[in-house]
Amino acid sequence: MVRVGVLGATGYAGIEVVRLIVSHPHAELKRVVSQSFVGQKISDVYPNLRGICDTECTALDVDDIAKNCDVVFTALPHGASKTVIPSLFEKGLKVIDLSGDFRYNDAKVYEEWYGEPHSAPNVLAQSVYGLCELHRDEIRTHRLIGNPGCYTTCSILALAPLVAAKAVDAKSLIADAKSGVTGAGRSAVLPNLYCEVNESVKAYKVATHRHTSEIEQELSLLAGEDIKLSFTPHLIPMQRGILSTCYANLVKPMTTEDAVRLYKEFYKGEEFVRVYDAGTLPEIKHVAGSNYAAIGVVVDLRLNRAVVVSCIDNLVKGAAGQAVQNMNIICGFDEGEGLRQAGMYL
Amino acid sequence: MVRVGVLGATGYAGIEVVRLIVSHPHAELKRVVSQSFVGQKISDVYPNLRGICDTECTALDVDDIAKNCDVVFTALPHGASKTVIPSLFEKGLKVIDLSGDFRYNDAKVYEEWYGEPHSAPNVLAQSVYGLCELHRDEIRTHRLIGNPGCYTTCSILALAPLVAAKAVDAKSLIADAKSGVTGAGRSAVLPNLYCEVNESVKAYKVATHRHTSEIEQELSLLAGEDIKLSFTPHLIPMQRGILSTCYANLVKPMTTEDAVRLYKEFYKGEEFVRVYDAGTLPEIKHVAGSNYAAIGVVVDLRLNRAVVVSCIDNLVKGAAGQAVQNMNIICGFDEGEGLRQAGMYL
Amino acid sequence: MVRVGVLGATGYAGIEVVRLIVSHPHAELKRVVSQSFVGQKISDVYPNLRGICDTECTALDVDDIAKNCDVVFTALPHGASKTVIPSLFEKGLKVIDLSGDFRYNDAKVYEEWYGEPHSAPNVLAQSVYGLCELHRDEIRTHRLIGNPGCYTTCSILALAPLVAAKAVDAKSLIADAKSGVTGAGRSAVLPNLYCEVNESVKAYKVATHRHTSEIEQELSLLAGEDIKLSFTPHLIPMQRGILSTCYANLVKPMTTEDAVRLYKEFYKGEEFVRVYDAGTLPEIKHVAGSNYAAIGVVVDLRLNRAVVVSCIDNLVKGAAGQAVQNMNIICGFDEGEGLRQAGMYL
Amino acid sequence: MVRVGVLGATGYAGIEVVRLIVSHPHAELKRVVSQSFVGQKISDVYPNLRGICDTECTALDVDDIAKNCDVVFTALPHGASKTVIPSLFEKGLKVIDLSGDFRYNDAKVYEEWYGEPHSAPNVLAQSVYGLCELHRDEIRTHRLIGNPGCYTTCSILALAPLVAAKAVDAKSLIADAKSGVTGAGRSAVLPNLYCEVNESVKAYKVATHRHTSEIEQELSLLAGEDIKLSFTPHLIPMQRGILSTCYANLVKPMTTEDAVRLYKEFYKGEEFVRVYDAGTLPEIKHVAGSNYAAIGVVVDLRLNRAVVVSCIDNLVKGAAGQAVQNMNIICGFDEGEGLRQAGMYL
Repeated sequence: MVRVGVLGATGYAGIEVVRLIVSHPHAELKRVVSQSFVGQKISDVYPNLRGICDTECTALDVDDIAKNCDVVFTALPHGASKTVIPSLFEKGLKVIDLSGDFRYNDAKVYEEWYGEPHSAPNVLAQSVYGLCELHRDEIRTHRLIGNPGCYTTCSILALAPLVAAKAVDAKSLIADAKSGVTGAGRSAVLPNLYCEVNESVKAYKVATHRHTSEIEQELSLLAGEDIKLSFTPHLIPMQRGILSTCYANLVKPMTTEDAVRLYKEFYKGEEFVRVYDAGTLPEIKHVAGSNYAAIGVVVDLRLNRAVVVSCIDNLVKGAAGQAVQNMNIICGFDEGEGLRQAGMYL
Repeated sequence: MVRVGVLGATGYAGIEVVRLIVSHPHAELKRVVSQSFVGQKISDVYPNLRGICDTECTALDVDDIAKNCDVVFTALPHGASKTVIPSLFEKGLKVIDLSGDFRYNDAKVYEEWYGEPHSAPNVLAQSVYGLCELHRDEIRTHRLIGNPGCYTTCSILALAPLVAAKAVDAKSLIADAKSGVTGAGRSAVLPNLYCEVNESVKAYKVATHRHTSEIEQELSLLAGEDIKLSFTPHLIPMQRGILSTCYANLVKPMTTEDAVRLYKEFYKGEEFVRVYDAGTLPEIKHVAGSNYAAIGVVVDLRLNRAVVVSCIDNLVKGAAGQAVQNMNIICGFDEGEGLRQAGMYL
Repeated sequence: MVRVGVLGATGYAGIEVVRLIVSHPHAELKRVVSQSFVGQKISDVYPNLRGICDTECTALDVDDIAKNCDVVFTALPHGASKTVIPSLFEKGLKVIDLSGDFRYNDAKVYEEWYGEPHSAPNVLAQSVYGLCELHRDEIRTHRLIGNPGCYTTCSILALAPLVAAKAVDAKSLIADAKSGVTGAGRSAVLPNLYCEVNESVKAYKVATHRHTSEIEQELSLLAGEDIKLSFTPHLIPMQRGILSTCYANLVKPMTTEDAVRLYKEFYKGEEFVRVYDAGTLPEIKHVAGSNYAAIGVVVDLRLNRAVVVSCIDNLVKGAAGQAVQNMNIICGFDEGEGLRQAGMYL
Repeated sequence: MVRVGVLGATGYAGIEVVRLIVSHPHAELKRVVSQSFVGQKISDVYPNLRGICDTECTALDVDDIAKNCDVVFTALPHGASKTVIPSLFEKGLKVIDLSGDFRYNDAKVYEEWYGEPHSAPNVLAQSVYGLCELHRDEIRTHRLIGNPGCYTTCSILALAPLVAAKAVDAKSLIADAKSGVTGAGRSAVLPNLYCEVNESVKAYKVATHRHTSEIEQELSLLAGEDIKLSFTPHLIPMQRGILSTCYANLVKPMTTEDAVRLYKEFYKGEEFVRVYDAGTLPEIKHVAGSNYAAIGVVVDLRLNRAVVVSCIDNLVKGAAGQAVQNMNIICGFDEGEGLRQAGMYL
């Protein structure tokens, strides 16, 4: 049994890690850290866990964590992770960070998109980008995982096969993403109120969202050339899920069937990526509540352009689920352990 | 491993049985019967199951079922069950019926509320009402279970402790219930359309809903006297869950704390019933997606009246989950097997 | 043209007053007061008003209001009204207050339910309870209107005909009310977040909600005896609307048709109350976005109990609409002026 | 007073025409045609109209319509319009058709996208495309208006200024549109059910949606060259509204401020188009329930690409509202008459 601690456990990503860990056959939840709820049972904050996980929330105590845990998930606000993680990391802990702080190969890219220098570049240098399907082998040999963003996971998985095959014009890429409201976290701020979100849709951070830089890093690696793309996030009145509609001009002519074949080949053997047959497309309902990603492709022959639709649950494959998948990899467990349950559809 | 068949598998209750059975450690799904989707994979109808359950839907063939299954769940429309079940039952199968057809101790009550004579009164006589917390011992010795209705389960669990303690005026009982739309099933009819249900609430079948009779049957048994109550169902714009607000005039004076104590005592040892402490009340979010029921009580001292709020997931504890709980009982498994996962909260 | 000021204009009730006033043929919006948005255009806070009302928000200045307005709507938090209104009232302004501060005939009842003495009992004594259908004549002669609460309006209208006819047992009354989330206001607090409200239902302030006292005041007046009732508010995942399901034991035997006749007689000539024919019941969708109340009655002959279902839009008939209706009355306008638009259904 | 008839009045677009006409100062609703509800009052089908419009639904009778109406709105399923309209048109009626049947300048384009020859090409030749902001002068002189599609209106308004200015690469255009469920109409089919739509998002008819051809027709006219674009519709769990996110590669370098200036100039004097200042973007909530379109632009300097976000209410500016705007034009009324009410925001 691996002993697990969760920092930032009462946020929406943190509590999803807790939910997955308590039903994981090889993990034991030892510490639940939440500054706002110290002394309260996690099941008082999230009563769905009553009788299932009644662990008390504690304040952060690095020594205590180091003594009682083997793996730590950090689901802290962006910026907080990079001040806490170095001390956890030097204690020898395995750390899976859900923030944006340890996702970059180049600290300068971080600085450019986050507006401040990275305070722990040496630790950053020892991290690996935890998109399991692309970096499985490197993840296995690391102790600090920068768990990918939700939008990022969805968009990279959508475009990777075409980009890796050099089948598309690298200057033409667009990812138009639609996210549920859990993606905005549990902050009690006006734009997150029910009556502000419900019966509406909005685009936000157009041309400036930080996840753009992650997607560009990964697609550039796959392409072997510098890729920049348009990424537009939208907020949708639902709880869970991201659907990313991606556009790419083809430089190699192909049909929808060809494209589907390419995707099936690329994701062959990947348990958590479902490539749809030509003529069918995924919906958020097909993956919500699960760690599965679902991808469908249409080639528009009129325009010689591929349209790729991909869906994930932002809290699972886009956060906590992929984090557990990373834990499984670095701990040598079966990669899908604790992650195979079906979404609920309803 | 018990071999399982599901009839009516592509309705909302049926597919929830399928979802639970495929992750049950002691059950194997052998037959998925759906007249409307014969020849299609269940995962084509519900793509959340892709790679998890790709079984092909078949037409009903009683002999085939009898040969290949030990337990059959029937999630058929009311009325259909009572024509199919007798032949399954006489083949020696264990049958758990999710319709209203086998829930009555008295065929006359069925006739009164369903508007036609029961066509198989002899089989009805061999059935037991499957509300596990109240009839566990009888269930164990039966082979045909009338799995309780969703509204019924929620309302009976709410009122049982007060009624059994003879603490309330039997003429004063009211259950005002609010249900998600999955309760209406998957029929493509106007009132179930998104734009007709969303941003609205309605009461329906006021004073005439069939579940009234089930609640009355069970509460009368507990009270040892004839109980009639007002039951009012409402449709709420959400998918899963029922919250039942119940009112009862107290004949024994008590405080909220007394009442909570009574409920905790009554449900002592019941894994799937959570009684809330005085001052706290359950919300649907606390149980949705799980087999747990949650109950809170307030005594209004001004009026000498108890207000009981109870919540379940209508598809789980109110249908498929309780059906699996019944399977566990009649098959001699640990009663909570396959049913312990937490609700998702988000 | 009557000159209008709105205090607390950027809350959900306040902005609804603004929306109604800008299309009112006899009113001119002169002042929009919002402490949080001083100097911003109201249409920057609520862009639906762009080009329709671009008035700048100001801080509260009683002299300025007195000079430029004839009627003031105060949509302030409970408690704030009673400190501001006395000075407005003594300037000779007509004041329509949407808070709970001026709804009581007896300052002691206020104290009992609001937990503090009323700071302006002399001004309170000059106010009238603004439920138009019940107090039209008194409203006409007053300058300070305590505009009724949303739950209150819905529940009183539901029970008034039966109570006034002395047809029901005064001890048996129960109002079980379901409200949309706009009723909780625009406060950026955790329980109002989209992800906390969506796909859930909860009861709150069971046996203690302040609106209970308003309902009791009005029903007692109608009955000529002291009435106490159970009132249970619930929060529903939708924006607008309240549906109140009311229960009353009949002391005069009657059928549903009798009851409907009683209601139609009681509300004869009332433009904004729609009594439904026997066999039909209102839904929130029938009134949302409008000033109409809709009421349906069922008599449960088995139990000799009436079940009354009433619906209003909490922001319109339950707040801003009724406030404008009151303005029409005290200003001598046609009572329905500016209030006749149909709800949107979709 | 112009005398109005509505065909297909009980569909979602038809009833929205009815709602707008009953409060229009210069129009009188004379005939409400609905094959499915002949003999019922429209207010029984849509009880929000009770007391406001209780007109009885009739079957189609062209002579009766011709005798009693001056203007007819046809909100019939695609295909039905072109069989009915010729006879109405030859009677001398003014006809505003909300289907796709009379939107094309070239019957061959219709045939290509609708899969069958146009049965009334001579009548089609006498129609005009009713996008008011682009074709106001032509509309004035016609008697048959092909009222634009909802997606179409939203996307054309978004791209028109850039295309007309020849500022963008005509081969690079993409419109990614998100629509509420009213856009799917009132058909009782499985994909429109609450539980199938709620908590999900899907793309559909990717690269094949018929509205593509309308957008291409209009943008080609503006550009003076043949334009083809990617158009991707998505279904969102809300009732009303379309948000279209459009992408275009710039051939003339410009900043966001330049682009906003271009848009403000293009739409100068247009009452129903709101161009947003640089740094702000519209949300569906800003226009839902109203006839206003709202447009915001961002230039992504990194990529030299414009991202345009436009919003309308699909039932109003995208259907019934624009139809009434067309009626106002062809009848010589003030163009905004009956259409100036603010959206409700909440």
